Amino acid sequence: MSLLSLFINAGLSAVGAVICYRLILDYIPIFIARKMYGNDQCKVSNAPVPEPMGVICAAVYLIVMFVFIPFPFIEWIGMDTFPYAKLLAILSGLISISTAILLGFADDMLDLRWRHKLLFPTLSSLPLLMVYYVSGNSTTVIVPTIVRHLVQPFVVLPITINISFIYYIFMGMVIVFCTNAINILAGINGLESGQSLVISASVSLFNLVQVYRFGADENAAGFWHHIISLYFLLPFTACTAVLFYFNKYPSRVFVGDTFCYWSGMTLAVVSILGHFSKTLMLFFIPQTINFLYSIPQLFHLVPCPRHRLPKYDAESDTVSMSVAEFKKSQLKTLGSIFITICRSIRILYVEEFEKDGEIYVRMNNLTIINLVLKFFGPMHESSLNGLLMLIQMLCSCLAFFIRFYLASLFYDVVE
Amino acid sequence: MSLLSLFINAGLSAVGAVICYRLILDYIPIFIARKMYGNDQCKVSNAPVPEPMGVICAAVYLIVMFVFIPFPFIEWIGMDTFPYAKLLAILSGLISISTAILLGFADDMLDLRWRHKLLFPTLSSLPLLMVYYVSGNSTTVIVPTIVRHLVQPFVVLPITINISFIYYIFMGMVIVFCTNAINILAGINGLESGQSLVISASVSLFNLVQVYRFGADENAAGFWHHIISLYFLLPFTACTAVLFYFNKYPSRVFVGDTFCYWSGMTLAVVSILGHFSKTLMLFFIPQTINFLYSIPQLFHLVPCPRHRLPKYDAESDTVSMSVAEFKKSQLKTLGSIFITICRSIRILYVEEFEKDGEIYVRMNNLTIINLVLKFFGPMHESSLNGLLMLIQMLCSCLAFFIRFYLASLFYDVVE
Repeated sequence: MSLLSLFINAGLSAVGAVICYRLILDYIPIFIARKMYGNDQCKVSNAPVPEPMGVICAAVYLIVMFVFIPFPFIEWIGMDTFPYAKLLAILSGLISISTAILLGFADDMLDLRWRHKLLFPTLSSLPLLMVYYVSGNSTTVIVPTIVRHLVQPFVVLPITINISFIYYIFMGMVIVFCTNAINILAGINGLESGQSLVISASVSLFNLVQVYRFGADENAAGFWHHIISLYFLLPFTACTAVLFYFNKYPSRVFVGDTFCYWSGMTLAVVSILGHFSKTLMLFFIPQTINFLYSIPQLFHLVPCPRHRLPKYDAESDTVSMSVAEFKKSQLKTLGSIFITICRSIRILYVEEFEKDGEIYVRMNNLTIINLVLKFFGPMHESSLNGLLMLIQMLCSCLAFFIRFYLASLFYDVVE
Repeated sequence: MSLLSLFINAGLSAVGAVICYRLILDYIPIFIARKMYGNDQCKVSNAPVPEPMGVICAAVYLIVMFVFIPFPFIEWIGMDTFPYAKLLAILSGLISISTAILLGFADDMLDLRWRHKLLFPTLSSLPLLMVYYVSGNSTTVIVPTIVRHLVQPFVVLPITINISFIYYIFMGMVIVFCTNAINILAGINGLESGQSLVISASVSLFNLVQVYRFGADENAAGFWHHIISLYFLLPFTACTAVLFYFNKYPSRVFVGDTFCYWSGMTLAVVSILGHFSKTLMLFFIPQTINFLYSIPQLFHLVPCPRHRLPKYDAESDTVSMSVAEFKKSQLKTLGSIFITICRSIRILYVEEFEKDGEIYVRMNNLTIINLVLKFFGPMHESSLNGLLMLIQMLCSCLAFFIRFYLASLFYDVVE
């Protein structure tokens, strides 16, 4: 029955994609009329591009989910053993997702303050974590074999350790990280929707592999974990694919923060409901590197310009890395250390020059978009996005390799 | 324990009110900067008024609810008899409310098409109705004693009848009606927030009376029904009171469609979860009359101007009823019948006049705001709102009278 629901889910996802396509075309002129648009900074023409179109797809996604919810439960209706915990899991996930959409849309319209942007998703994940708790879900982690062997002379570690509330803190951090990770790796045509599409397709593939491995044992807990993830991800992948079609170079719509929060929260939610939040992090490798690389600018260890987008050259129709310039005297100690280390391992373009008797520093802005441009030189915007998509896909391959091959070397027990 | 949670809920509501107050002050300049404002058409100055401020209070409301959810369930944690159905009821209600907020905010920003505005709340209430279904909630209605006696010669009716799926259709209609009812009784300072405040305070009082009547029997189903309603309504009343403070004459903020949908959906949700949707309709008497009275214009049986707000007279600083003018030949048959009936029972101002050799009709716009102005003549905007609030309160008194006195005459069994 769970597999049958999965086919129904896939069918509804296809319907959702068609509706997304029509509604986007329908609402493009309405967005323009209401002055809800951005200007594409990497184009010669400065034509308005409707933004945030993500809200339309997100609304369709919610409706598809609402219509779908009854199907997995039809067989249980009227029975004493109704699987309340499973329905609770789905509803709590949808609450987090719908509030993330609301937050994103409010952010697009209002430019919310940072503290509200961090606090709101944390609090809106409370129902999800509470349901996780009352459903008696596991908070145990498996101790890597190598760690057990290393510490064996001193202490005998069990195969699994219950880390209890630390696990909840970890899950909360996954949610905050995911809802912001896609938002800070953004700015060129097709990047936000493209990376989300690659990640959600990869995670769906991972779920399908796991479902296949569990075989037809529908009662195995692991089976349900990957099925529920697919319930959320197939409609998401379908709606996002349509959005990507309009968002890819040259963008006819922009996705907005609405999409970034929706996308991040959906992926975080499925990883928590599906008990694979650590695996999810493997699929977020580019976003994680981008976040770590961005830290000095995000936390103002080095001066941060208002925009960190690549620089557009109209003559050659290419984009190249953008730079930040500042007086060397403005640098804090931590910033200097960061620059020295990055320079020595060649992951930073740095130049010093003199102006008006003072020493200035010029360095590339700290995003992996600029880092890719540093290595490969100026290129066309669509090539740049293609290259970033390729990196994302290679990281997905790496994630599969780590999850299915390396993990079996490090862990005795792997689901 | 349920009563203790109620005190915690009241405490959190108070905190929520304080946060609403601060955030509204915080975000007023942000709304203006982002050009999110309306212009007050009943004022001499045309100063911009931030809109839709309802979204800020709605966000605070959701957070208060998220923080509150664990409390009623603390005593059950880890027990085998965890009340899943109760948690499900709360979560499904929150899903409907949060999607209603999203819909309202999107409508404020985008002016959604009518079919989307009607379809979206219907579909977003699916989880709520499904939870109602799987929780084995009753779909029986009590047959009025008088009806049983009247039909007794022909057929013996039981005391209660299970109307099954018709009950679900009724609940769906309650949701669609409530989410739109407040939206169409709007347009003067303080009216949307004021009427919602009166209704939610009245329903809360009704719930408290019922909780008192059930005594301390926490296991009675009826007890829980009114407690869960209070869980949703106390924070709503607190946040709305603050919003009313800013929205009352002269408005410093406008509430927007966001608030109207949020308010309507919250009231609909509590009436369904609390099994008192028929009683709720008693508290919506002014809205129901307004809706019925508006039908000829809403469904274009008579021509409908773009705005139906009262007319502002700058010299006397008063508002008076606004009129619609059209050629008599434009009238459809149903429209003529409506006008004749309303005119004969004196609930419509109608005048005919000749211009350019054709007969024109001039009639007041069909809202109870204009109807009140027809009866009482032009008055100051704040007096008009005060009068409408008074009518709303009198209707609440009538609702209590019908529910607690008349109902006992018509029904053998009253909860």
